[in-house]
Amino acid sequence: MRDVAASTVRRLSLYLQFLDECGRQGLGTVSSGALAERGGASPAQVRKDLSFFGSFGRRGVGYSVPLLAGRLREILGLARRYRVVLIGAGRVGAALAAYPGFRARGFDVVAIYDVDPARIGTSVDGLVVRSGASLEADLLAEAADIAVIATPAGAAQGVADRLVRAGVRGLLNFAPVTLAVGPGVTVSEVNMALELEALSYALHHAQP
Amino acid sequence: MRDVAASTVRRLSLYLQFLDECGRQGLGTVSSGALAERGGASPAQVRKDLSFFGSFGRRGVGYSVPLLAGRLREILGLARRYRVVLIGAGRVGAALAAYPGFRARGFDVVAIYDVDPARIGTSVDGLVVRSGASLEADLLAEAADIAVIATPAGAAQGVADRLVRAGVRGLLNFAPVTLAVGPGVTVSEVNMALELEALSYALHHAQP
Repeated sequence: MRDVAASTVRRLSLYLQFLDECGRQGLGTVSSGALAERGGASPAQVRKDLSFFGSFGRRGVGYSVPLLAGRLREILGLARRYRVVLIGAGRVGAALAAYPGFRARGFDVVAIYDVDPARIGTSVDGLVVRSGASLEADLLAEAADIAVIATPAGAAQGVADRLVRAGVRGLLNFAPVTLAVGPGVTVSEVNMALELEALSYALHHAQP
Repeated sequence: MRDVAASTVRRLSLYLQFLDECGRQGLGTVSSGALAERGGASPAQVRKDLSFFGSFGRRGVGYSVPLLAGRLREILGLARRYRVVLIGAGRVGAALAAYPGFRARGFDVVAIYDVDPARIGTSVDGLVVRSGASLEADLLAEAADIAVIATPAGAAQGVADRLVRAGVRGLLNFAPVTLAVGPGVTVSEVNMALELEALSYALHHAQP
């Protein structure tokens, strides 16, 4: 399969969220217009996005909700499971350890690490917090696909470098810094600061 | 001031994060090249972004870190404070109530709401959880600028409608649905599912 743009993957995710909602409401088919509204795209864009991965729709009938959802799950790599390590057992790390959306997407959090002696050995959502010092040895014994970085900002790049050297190819970064990684490594970021500042900008400049 | 694109606001936030790091490291000036790298833009784009808000840089010297950071804080609306209500006192809501980045950006969480009788009246990070039923009356007595939505997916749109009717003009949505709001209301979203699926897509389609 050809490589597709990040913006396309994002729209596919939005389509899938919408299809899952339709499925919960018992809808069997959905129109490209409804998918378009959800993905922030035109109906023509929806048809183009989906035809890229094979044809799913029928003119006048629309898309089958379960068939399209299943195919999108395959395309998005959600039909397999991923081994995930979580770095940082502070407030953010502990909240993430309990996040049900990981498991629902095939992301199995198999270990959690911290460098704070007060946290090492404690239990977080059923996992015993391991020492960050054992990260490389653990990953050598059992590889991980993805690491979630929930460290303080100053520690994140160093941790990312260690993870990548140990073979981790996907990073989900919650630390408020932009990580630099080499080719072949994918970084997703959840940057709360950007979202908050988009809000404060809009409110500050709103017409009264 | 003219309205600027969301992508510009995003770059301004990234510049500010970088300037704050430079400040912590004791750097007095920074080049447009260094800012560009951080904002994912060209040096020419940086100069254009910043000239839009007035001239800050000096040829051959670069930008003053404290002056530019201060000006960006003003532009981003971070020089004032915002009253924030938090809807949902579950795991995500409780983690957010404790998030230090809110206060650092002038976002004061003044109240937290839930509809679960088992949560109402309990204390979350120093705030007593209020009943969702009192939302409108509370907002009438004391307006809020921003609401953070940390409800289950199915409840989010209804809550958003109530908040907007009660005069809230900024929403930060953590529920995994796309919210529809009218003009004059700004929504920022933290959609973990999109970030996770971008990772699973990349790993699933990676060359071995």
